[in-house]
Amino acid sequence: MMLETARHRIAANGLRSLKVRDVAEAADCSIGSVYNEFRDFDGLVLTVNRETIRALTDRLIAVPAEDPVRQLHGLAEAYLAFAAEHANLLRALFEHRMGDDRPFPEDILSMVMQAFALMHAPLARLLPDPDPEEVALLARTMFSAVHGIISLGLEERMVAVPPEKLREQLAQFVDTHLAGLGIKIGRTQAFGKIS
Amino acid sequence: MMLETARHRIAANGLRSLKVRDVAEAADCSIGSVYNEFRDFDGLVLTVNRETIRALTDRLIAVPAEDPVRQLHGLAEAYLAFAAEHANLLRALFEHRMGDDRPFPEDILSMVMQAFALMHAPLARLLPDPDPEEVALLARTMFSAVHGIISLGLEERMVAVPPEKLREQLAQFVDTHLAGLGIKIGRTQAFGKIS
Repeated sequence: MMLETARHRIAANGLRSLKVRDVAEAADCSIGSVYNEFRDFDGLVLTVNRETIRALTDRLIAVPAEDPVRQLHGLAEAYLAFAAEHANLLRALFEHRMGDDRPFPEDILSMVMQAFALMHAPLARLLPDPDPEEVALLARTMFSAVHGIISLGLEERMVAVPPEKLREQLAQFVDTHLAGLGIKIGRTQAFGKIS
Repeated sequence: MMLETARHRIAANGLRSLKVRDVAEAADCSIGSVYNEFRDFDGLVLTVNRETIRALTDRLIAVPAEDPVRQLHGLAEAYLAFAAEHANLLRALFEHRMGDDRPFPEDILSMVMQAFALMHAPLARLLPDPDPEEVALLARTMFSAVHGIISLGLEERMVAVPPEKLREQLAQFVDTHLAGLGIKIGRTQAFGKIS
């Protein structure tokens, strides 16, 4: 119940709007009970963020893996769909900093890293003679690029790419990048100049 | 003086650590004087953020424009250098939200959009028969991708790309993307498979 309230607050108005007092009021309990359950404000945010990265990972893992090119497109699309539905929750995951310079818990970091590594398998299948370390870096770079395109593209106030164009641009981005890696793909290409 | 204090606070500990009271104390004035000068908390943050985007734009505009491929690499590198030096200030620019759902001031939005449009000119020079609208979208997509790679790559807690590899990965990213667009470039290519 407290967790639900916290998630709804963040989802509706962003991390900045989250107050322990409001969570306690909505759950009809004392502020002490919230601290008892989550230790502190960061503990509450981390619990919400763990559920966010878990839900995102579930979506990404559900992308069909038969065809590696389609899988890469599917991963980018699934990330976009999740980001569009849960913009504030995803922002909270990336924007949250621990108070008093305490270190970030390892478990949530490794969950994020695992999600960002999901482009590894399809890229390794597409590249001839892939070096595992290079593919790992490439996968994370590509996913970070997709993250940048989506997160800025979805900023209504700071639109790097207009929302209606975003899906299309993302597909074009993935195609262009694969073509740049020398991977042949049977799709209409960005600017029709690669084929 | 107040502005300097606010900037130093954000640069050292992030936007979250900024308190009007601390700014007033450091400037040896009343909280009322801070509000008098900047109107409210958001006004103070916006003043810092305007200086950040102005300084970033100055750096990007200073990148030599003779060779368009080198200019694109230079823009990515200049962004990385600025982000590495001013990580918290740049984060504050992208993470700041206005209180009470007030709209974001137009001037700062258009400054950000102008910075993100700086890849337009070199891309237009490189693409044969470029459609202005498509190049504009491509430029913003590419810059957003670069932004994603850099901002996640510099997150020490959430390293999408190890920092020492970041510069190299960024150059490879730009090359791969240009190759994918069918642009011939005289450099060693990512994975050596593009020629």
